[in-house]
Amino acid sequence: MKKWKTLDSEFLVDAPWLKVAKEKCELHNGKVIDDFYTLWQPDWVLILARTKDGKWIMTEQYRHGTGGLEVEFPAGIINAGESPEQAALRELQEECGYTSGAISGSDATSGNDIAANLNSAAGLNSTAGLNSAAVAYLGQFPVNPDRHRGKFHVVFIDNVERSGSTNFDETEEIETFLMTDEELQKKIASGEFNHPLQIAGYYKWKLSAKNLAQK
Amino acid sequence: MKKWKTLDSEFLVDAPWLKVAKEKCELHNGKVIDDFYTLWQPDWVLILARTKDGKWIMTEQYRHGTGGLEVEFPAGIINAGESPEQAALRELQEECGYTSGAISGSDATSGNDIAANLNSAAGLNSTAGLNSAAVAYLGQFPVNPDRHRGKFHVVFIDNVERSGSTNFDETEEIETFLMTDEELQKKIASGEFNHPLQIAGYYKWKLSAKNLAQK
Repeated sequence: MKKWKTLDSEFLVDAPWLKVAKEKCELHNGKVIDDFYTLWQPDWVLILARTKDGKWIMTEQYRHGTGGLEVEFPAGIINAGESPEQAALRELQEECGYTSGAISGSDATSGNDIAANLNSAAGLNSTAGLNSAAVAYLGQFPVNPDRHRGKFHVVFIDNVERSGSTNFDETEEIETFLMTDEELQKKIASGEFNHPLQIAGYYKWKLSAKNLAQK
Repeated sequence: MKKWKTLDSEFLVDAPWLKVAKEKCELHNGKVIDDFYTLWQPDWVLILARTKDGKWIMTEQYRHGTGGLEVEFPAGIINAGESPEQAALRELQEECGYTSGAISGSDATSGNDIAANLNSAAGLNSTAGLNSAAVAYLGQFPVNPDRHRGKFHVVFIDNVERSGSTNFDETEEIETFLMTDEELQKKIASGEFNHPLQIAGYYKWKLSAKNLAQK
């Protein structure tokens, strides 16, 4: 096994939203690197939320990394004590004003089937309990395997419905709109939707849905 | 436009492989954030390299971010003065010991068509010149739009051939192996291949190839 040994480590940045550590590492070949930098940001959840007529809930907001308005799926930090599914349902309500249709009733059974089948197709365990009806957990990704210690989770919520009220954080100003799956793919091909972490999560959903359809 | 204004900025980390800045920002609503952290890492290229019989060139190596062995496409930092295509061809040789079949000849014309068609399908410009025969530039992504200033490029190289010799950096130890497209998709679905930035680049290739096939 070619695992590195961490001989020493100190935090250069130790903030709630970002930690940067300088690590002294011994490599598989005995070489020592004095300053390998590793990063950490809080775990977050990507929310693939679809309306009853098959449209994706999308957002547009300013991102200071790129310095421009960005088309994205809704997403948000997972609070302490929350499951990814709970965070997804909370953020979808707060950012976009949509809730899981399963809560309000009539499609709960079919939603439940979708979640169970999707989880089974992807080889994943469903989180039992709260609002799990039309909510499927699709897995997690490391943000960036090279030097990043954080991760994000992917949650699919089918049959969402508009509930009207949003509740932004103080630093947020988010527009919500709907997009067909075909439009979404066009925007990925053109680069208009170009958040790579979110595109990976979407593609994971696509593979799960395809595996399900082939059964 | 909801763009933030950067009022002040200082580097907390200023290394060749990572820069971290603390920025004082004024938001669209007048609120001031004293410590918005932004990141930068050198731009890199994702290398989607395929053999004549349609197999992907894959790697396995230790990643200190995840602390484990990771299945990945080849990838590498773009050196000063290099185009993404040049960096892709160099890294493919150094890391994996494969070269573009186009250089050695017989498929150069069909390779050229593939590159031109793929670029046209994706609405992108080809980089003319050196080794462009079977090499298609598929576009770029921001690494993470929220607080990251770096980006990566996606280059597709068809009909690659084994040239035998690798040339690792001092800190690298990389295994190379081949994988069919079907195997790759299974490994994405199972999470065995889970580098999200690379999966986004692969899906962009898939959309380009699909658009091309539908013409």
